[in-house]
Amino acid sequence: MASLFHKHQFGILITAAQILFFVLIGIFGEYDSKAMPRSSGSEIQTHDYVNSMYPLFQDVHVMMFIGFGFLMTFLRRYGYSAVSVNMLLSCLVIQWGIIVRGFWSEHFAETGKFVLNIESLLTADFAAAVVLITMGAMLGKLSPAQYVVMAFVETAVALTTEHIVVEYFKANDVGGSMIVHTFGAYFGLACAKTFNKKEMVEHEHEGSSYNSDIFSMIGAIFLWVFWPSFNAAIATPEDARHRAIINTYLSLCACTLVTFMISQLTDPERKMRFSMVHIANSTLAGGVAIGTTANVVLHPLHALLVGAGAAVISVLGYAYLTPFMAKKLGIHDTCGVNNLHGMPGVYAGILGFIFAAVYDPARYSTSLGDIYPAMVSNVDGEARSSIIQACFQLAGLALVLGCSLVSGAVTGLILRLKLWNQVREKEYYSDGDYFETPADYDFTTRIISKIDHIELTEHTSLTNKEH
Amino acid sequence: MASLFHKHQFGILITAAQILFFVLIGIFGEYDSKAMPRSSGSEIQTHDYVNSMYPLFQDVHVMMFIGFGFLMTFLRRYGYSAVSVNMLLSCLVIQWGIIVRGFWSEHFAETGKFVLNIESLLTADFAAAVVLITMGAMLGKLSPAQYVVMAFVETAVALTTEHIVVEYFKANDVGGSMIVHTFGAYFGLACAKTFNKKEMVEHEHEGSSYNSDIFSMIGAIFLWVFWPSFNAAIATPEDARHRAIINTYLSLCACTLVTFMISQLTDPERKMRFSMVHIANSTLAGGVAIGTTANVVLHPLHALLVGAGAAVISVLGYAYLTPFMAKKLGIHDTCGVNNLHGMPGVYAGILGFIFAAVYDPARYSTSLGDIYPAMVSNVDGEARSSIIQACFQLAGLALVLGCSLVSGAVTGLILRLKLWNQVREKEYYSDGDYFETPADYDFTTRIISKIDHIELTEHTSLTNKEH
Amino acid sequence: MASLFHKHQFGILITAAQILFFVLIGIFGEYDSKAMPRSSGSEIQTHDYVNSMYPLFQDVHVMMFIGFGFLMTFLRRYGYSAVSVNMLLSCLVIQWGIIVRGFWSEHFAETGKFVLNIESLLTADFAAAVVLITMGAMLGKLSPAQYVVMAFVETAVALTTEHIVVEYFKANDVGGSMIVHTFGAYFGLACAKTFNKKEMVEHEHEGSSYNSDIFSMIGAIFLWVFWPSFNAAIATPEDARHRAIINTYLSLCACTLVTFMISQLTDPERKMRFSMVHIANSTLAGGVAIGTTANVVLHPLHALLVGAGAAVISVLGYAYLTPFMAKKLGIHDTCGVNNLHGMPGVYAGILGFIFAAVYDPARYSTSLGDIYPAMVSNVDGEARSSIIQACFQLAGLALVLGCSLVSGAVTGLILRLKLWNQVREKEYYSDGDYFETPADYDFTTRIISKIDHIELTEHTSLTNKEH
Repeated sequence: MASLFHKHQFGILITAAQILFFVLIGIFGEYDSKAMPRSSGSEIQTHDYVNSMYPLFQDVHVMMFIGFGFLMTFLRRYGYSAVSVNMLLSCLVIQWGIIVRGFWSEHFAETGKFVLNIESLLTADFAAAVVLITMGAMLGKLSPAQYVVMAFVETAVALTTEHIVVEYFKANDVGGSMIVHTFGAYFGLACAKTFNKKEMVEHEHEGSSYNSDIFSMIGAIFLWVFWPSFNAAIATPEDARHRAIINTYLSLCACTLVTFMISQLTDPERKMRFSMVHIANSTLAGGVAIGTTANVVLHPLHALLVGAGAAVISVLGYAYLTPFMAKKLGIHDTCGVNNLHGMPGVYAGILGFIFAAVYDPARYSTSLGDIYPAMVSNVDGEARSSIIQACFQLAGLALVLGCSLVSGAVTGLILRLKLWNQVREKEYYSDGDYFETPADYDFTTRIISKIDHIELTEHTSLTNKEH
Repeated sequence: MASLFHKHQFGILITAAQILFFVLIGIFGEYDSKAMPRSSGSEIQTHDYVNSMYPLFQDVHVMMFIGFGFLMTFLRRYGYSAVSVNMLLSCLVIQWGIIVRGFWSEHFAETGKFVLNIESLLTADFAAAVVLITMGAMLGKLSPAQYVVMAFVETAVALTTEHIVVEYFKANDVGGSMIVHTFGAYFGLACAKTFNKKEMVEHEHEGSSYNSDIFSMIGAIFLWVFWPSFNAAIATPEDARHRAIINTYLSLCACTLVTFMISQLTDPERKMRFSMVHIANSTLAGGVAIGTTANVVLHPLHALLVGAGAAVISVLGYAYLTPFMAKKLGIHDTCGVNNLHGMPGVYAGILGFIFAAVYDPARYSTSLGDIYPAMVSNVDGEARSSIIQACFQLAGLALVLGCSLVSGAVTGLILRLKLWNQVREKEYYSDGDYFETPADYDFTTRIISKIDHIELTEHTSLTNKEH
Repeated sequence: MASLFHKHQFGILITAAQILFFVLIGIFGEYDSKAMPRSSGSEIQTHDYVNSMYPLFQDVHVMMFIGFGFLMTFLRRYGYSAVSVNMLLSCLVIQWGIIVRGFWSEHFAETGKFVLNIESLLTADFAAAVVLITMGAMLGKLSPAQYVVMAFVETAVALTTEHIVVEYFKANDVGGSMIVHTFGAYFGLACAKTFNKKEMVEHEHEGSSYNSDIFSMIGAIFLWVFWPSFNAAIATPEDARHRAIINTYLSLCACTLVTFMISQLTDPERKMRFSMVHIANSTLAGGVAIGTTANVVLHPLHALLVGAGAAVISVLGYAYLTPFMAKKLGIHDTCGVNNLHGMPGVYAGILGFIFAAVYDPARYSTSLGDIYPAMVSNVDGEARSSIIQACFQLAGLALVLGCSLVSGAVTGLILRLKLWNQVREKEYYSDGDYFETPADYDFTTRIISKIDHIELTEHTSLTNKEH
């Protein structure tokens, strides 16, 4: 009986989840009036809404499925899982996120229904991002059923936290650096800590191959290229969107140059070589770092400086902090999400404080209310000052850190339960237990990495035979 | 002489086709007035047309070239051909499709000219999709010249069938699930049947490698991500486009979850593993299944249910029907297009019947005529009832099935003619006869899959030497 | 001391460059008023600007980072460098290009400041394209520091040349075939000539592997699919943009068919096989060839013919000219940029002359001034005739050729200086000296290509053991 549950637990969980989604969306969901046929007297429909939302949504959509999916294929023996589980969790979280966010929506409070429109799809993808970041920290250590449990819990907590940060604290976080990146990363690290086993560290299957690193660059570059859309998608008014695009673009460019520069300096063998880990990951930290303030920053120099700082934090994190945390603190972070999402997210949150405190709010003129709603009129009818808003930005960051660490730690404990299928220690970071694999699987993903040590003796004879 | 023709037949066919296109487009083609300089008195041009069509067109364009092209790279030894022949046939069908569709256009009937605009490019890409689906069924079994002949015949028949379904039957098929997916799949299956040789089945080169399956996922995910654009691109009015986007997105999400669930259950070794074939293909069936009714469905639950059903059909098809058809019925379907496009397309057509029959047409209000033109006013001046429209939807499906099966079967017979270069039986599913290959070709695409059986004995010594 | 400089020269260059960018953008840069908060009295903002620019910009952005980056991964042992250095140089040139172009802008002349907006990002990506094309000619032969020096010099010269061609000659070059493609290619060839060493030719590491050629196709297809956006992004008015899209699309389709046809004929072993080099590169020549006149051509047939011609030039160039130049002229062109960008760019320039001379300018009606500004009113108050405009088109081409060849040759000499880190001759076209590589690096990128010659003897025993 127990073994039957273990055998089928993934299927049971997925079936239960999908039925739950049917029921909740069936009862409470409805299409936005913009997506429903108009009655005869209504105004003529323009293309404006779809035109201004859909292309940015599609960029974000590519980031979730291609970007995160391929970025995580860097493990030489876990490519099937990376790209597939990425897809599975996204589809789970998209539906669950639409529901949770729907329940928190004003429209639901008023009517008992929540609406679906392109913005729902977009914010559902943002919810997926939170979970995919956490997946990066746990990559290769969970069974499919465990990933599903983790995603289910995290989505609910993350979207509730987001609701408080945005609706109560009225913090600005246009690109989600706090509520998406910071949350996802520290949930993941806390989960990794409580779930940790020493066999996870320096495991023989944890590592890349030449081709897997190039696959990973597909994901990295799509994330890099479309990041301006991620940070700008929900920015209003139009000038703020325009600015969010440019700020993100500039931050990423400066971040990339500095990443290459620092990467050389941290070469463990002091040969001044670059590391693909830094190039695929730290170059993206500039997108995270400018995320909270992409609509706030008013001068290109500031965006460049933000990006450059992110690169320093991220590369040093990969080079020194991640190995230290794995070996000394028992926090194994497979993709180094602390360096790509965690610390740059905290940095973004602090920048949110600084820019709110330092910039003269009068510069935002009529759009101040779009960026900092509470600085125009808050619940008590009086407007927040710059420094109060800045403190609420920090409070938002603190809440995100607190909620993510606690819920992540608890989730890690839940995932330890014998109830769930656990990955065999020998098979961490490996597809073989969960995917039908082709005949070359073991050669391509394991043996090929050992041959390097033999070839030096055989090479001569090989070339001799050739000529 | 005959051997000279055999040697050069591909070049002759391509040259003849390209010259034909020059002549026909040269004589009959012209640019849409929206793409021609305006005379001085005309109104100011807005960006609206390009803005509302071009981004969706580009998504579809990516689906054709990256999506289909990389999806078919899953064969370990046929990657060059998959991605290249995909490109070749697309470029052939795009031009030929513009012409054929142009000849069927109202504008041509009136003026003797057909126009080219962004919609022409978009619908030309749809025509390419028909042929690329068929290519999936025949993948690895045709010479380049045979692919060209097949594409040439199929495009003409498919676009003529489409013309009847849309213009005479006035069936709604906004995402082309009948006229694109069903047609392409059943043309391919009929062609595979009449072209079949027993050596095609269980051929030593038919299979994937670890890297080729990951390449294939690039295609799969781009198809998955941009499918909403495919189903929404030609939907009008704007609310229908908006709805088509959301319906497709939801259908795909539910389809993906259910695909993972069923995939485990069909593991031939009962180890509850996932199959990359299902993940790369069946997850897309939700896009096909909702294609006919993406602009029709008015509740998110219905879209989710449609997608979930598609996954069941598709995975079971891959697991049981495709091997059965190959071994018992002499229908070898390399990519399993029956499971991704064929059965889900028929299912979409039946859903078109159901939704037309069951939904109250009054709900579409003023946009009813955009969705079901004949329900507002038909040729006789009287409007169709719901059930009549529903029957015409079924009639459209039946016509598509009939035309595709007959024309596909005939095409298979044509392709058998000794006139054409035939692939050597030993070299089915292989690039070597048609592409210059690098030095590692045979190792990477053939030998590597055999080493797996040897390494168990050698592995120990390898690791010993290493340490 | 000298050795310390050699060790850190890349870091020093990058740091100096990034600080220079901070200073210059900090002092002289500012955001466009469209990206700054509006004062209270100003008009309501529409989505029109972002909607009409951003999706095309994003397409171009993908072309630079995924397109060029992956196209250059075809070298089996230089994939990390190709995709990473592509990213590095792009980020360098984007910032430097914004500055140089800013200094040449009218707004700077008037106010002492230059503005940043989405068009800046777009034209910065165009500047990156120039350098990435040159990178193609020098691929595998430069150290990171040398690439940086090259990019720095070239950007300044290319953007100055562009300024003269566009502002003084008033030449039309909407898709940048002269100022981007021709410049980048001939700068690269001249640089390759003066930098040449005989060890670069027929080097053992110059070549592809089966997987690297498929990676390369990812880049090729994204370039192919998004090329219409490249040629149309800055076209005005709207009908010209629409036309530029269709012309590019048609030119690419015809070019692709003809590429396949000619590729077979040039098979060195006369086996009528296709070459992946042609398919990944020559199919794109149609985009270059129509680049100068994408907004000019008014009939679809003309676009098709332009594309077909480009394929002939490009494939023959790859088959015969590139090897001849490498062996006899001492011009080694790693990616064959002469065939993809150089000769098709010159051809585009000549077509610019022909179309300007032959088409009746009255056909452009009110949009003549957008396409050929000097044909409406030039500095002297009188309008140019068709033939004068045509000659200025040629003059633009001549200037581009002259400037690119001279500055490229000088740059090649600069790069030879012992001052700079040079790539070891043994390690041309190899990642190993500049990247941390995984354990399978040598096997996957070198040994695997030699095994092909051995397997014939071992294969039988392998299969025997298997069964």
